[in-house]
Amino acid sequence: MRRVVVVVGLPGVGKSTVLSLASEKLRERGYSVRVVNFGDFMLSYLLERGVVRSRDEIRKLPLVTQRELQELTAKAIREEFEKSSGGRFVGVVDTHAVIRTPAGFWPGLPLSVLRELRPDLIAVIEASPEEILSRQLRDSSRARSDYSSRQLLEELLATYRYYAIASSVISGAALVVVVNRENQASQAAEELVRAVEEL
Amino acid sequence: MRRVVVVVGLPGVGKSTVLSLASEKLRERGYSVRVVNFGDFMLSYLLERGVVRSRDEIRKLPLVTQRELQELTAKAIREEFEKSSGGRFVGVVDTHAVIRTPAGFWPGLPLSVLRELRPDLIAVIEASPEEILSRQLRDSSRARSDYSSRQLLEELLATYRYYAIASSVISGAALVVVVNRENQASQAAEELVRAVEEL
Amino acid sequence: MRRVVVVVGLPGVGKSTVLSLASEKLRERGYSVRVVNFGDFMLSYLLERGVVRSRDEIRKLPLVTQRELQELTAKAIREEFEKSSGGRFVGVVDTHAVIRTPAGFWPGLPLSVLRELRPDLIAVIEASPEEILSRQLRDSSRARSDYSSRQLLEELLATYRYYAIASSVISGAALVVVVNRENQASQAAEELVRAVEEL
Repeated sequence: MRRVVVVVGLPGVGKSTVLSLASEKLRERGYSVRVVNFGDFMLSYLLERGVVRSRDEIRKLPLVTQRELQELTAKAIREEFEKSSGGRFVGVVDTHAVIRTPAGFWPGLPLSVLRELRPDLIAVIEASPEEILSRQLRDSSRARSDYSSRQLLEELLATYRYYAIASSVISGAALVVVVNRENQASQAAEELVRAVEEL
Repeated sequence: MRRVVVVVGLPGVGKSTVLSLASEKLRERGYSVRVVNFGDFMLSYLLERGVVRSRDEIRKLPLVTQRELQELTAKAIREEFEKSSGGRFVGVVDTHAVIRTPAGFWPGLPLSVLRELRPDLIAVIEASPEEILSRQLRDSSRARSDYSSRQLLEELLATYRYYAIASSVISGAALVVVVNRENQASQAAEELVRAVEEL
Repeated sequence: MRRVVVVVGLPGVGKSTVLSLASEKLRERGYSVRVVNFGDFMLSYLLERGVVRSRDEIRKLPLVTQRELQELTAKAIREEFEKSSGGRFVGVVDTHAVIRTPAGFWPGLPLSVLRELRPDLIAVIEASPEEILSRQLRDSSRARSDYSSRQLLEELLATYRYYAIASSVISGAALVVVVNRENQASQAAEELVRAVEEL
């Protein structure tokens, strides 16, 4: 049994925490879990092949080239997951449904990527605008200054969901929305685990 | 002339009534109409082939297996429609744009299904939250207790439409939204018929 | 370097003005720009081949046939763009994300069209409901009487954006929303140009 789960969420929703708790819970229940961060995997893949020498170099590539690399990365991740043998394997891809770039919104899970990843579940982690803003303030080490107001955040959350829905309809993957409430990341992780177990 | 129309709608919008009235009207106007319920067709198809012995067995299959069966069913339905010969044929598929499962929202019309069905029109039947709730109360024989409030229903109706829009863009089918108002199912059916006649 | 940009927007948002200003700006910056209006290109293409004798004849064709012609047109436009040689070429397609027809909403950028056009950017031109309505009143020569109220227009703008998002996720193209404010079309054009330059 091999399942591929894509986990997405706006920066500031607490995706990493939920993801790490969910992986732990899945392992406790006998699953073999492999978590891959899409961006990190892309960087290693390109560094190994000498395509780029740093993360910054990727960002400076034309969007068109980045798109080709995105597809190659998806293919390599799926191949990595296919190597797993025996038992109940869950391959988790930590990525974005949509990314803001200077050229506009760039889909993180377009048809070309989904065709390679073939996910069984897309999990969207959400949080209230208030909590996203307060996480931003505490987490000043990372650049998350792009959300200025509550209303803008509400719109972004809705838009983010549309992107995830479109990706779900293209891929045929189930879609689960997990709300990460303050101090309840463990419950959010539990919801994610339950959805994975139902696949 | 062969047209394929997919009719979807949240439980409680009165889809069956509108569908049955629309079929009648189409037949009166000289169309040869075949209505297929996606779930029923899937069940017969699997019973015949000995894959399952009851509807319950389908629901207990892993979502991943159900997805493969969903695609096979779509292929079989289209083949069934292709057998129709001569005259103005309308194949109607009664199904869902999205289904709530324990693993989350599952697309009823993903790319894999649309590629097989090749619909010309996707008709979304809608009703006001109030009417959906009141139909639920009267229709206690069927389990429709999943909508608790007006606000939740409004959100579900909007989400349902996004799923249908994504399916329309993937398939290239036209999309018509038909509002089924209390005691006006015949008018709703008429709107659906008009859209079919324009194809 | 060859980039394909699809520009869409509800009638009345001022798409033509923004598009013409943006083309000028791109040319000033050394780009070779070719703007193709999808509908006009389709008509010429069909007139040349003797498929139809007037624009009206296209509209009277069954939607199913129009869909096939839509795909053929997309293929021909891309081929036209591929002929461009040398320099920084930008092929711009002026079209619609969704079109209202008597059979309902018809996607202007379905998978079949996107597969041929292979756009790098989808630009959605928007304007406030008030400005769309006021442009309508001034522009009485063209039939734009389909928006009756502010609320309907807000819904249409949102729906229009969903269609564009779905097309972006299918094609992998970036999506930029450009708001065309009264008397600031030049700024809107500048935003569009900036997105193109980032591709």
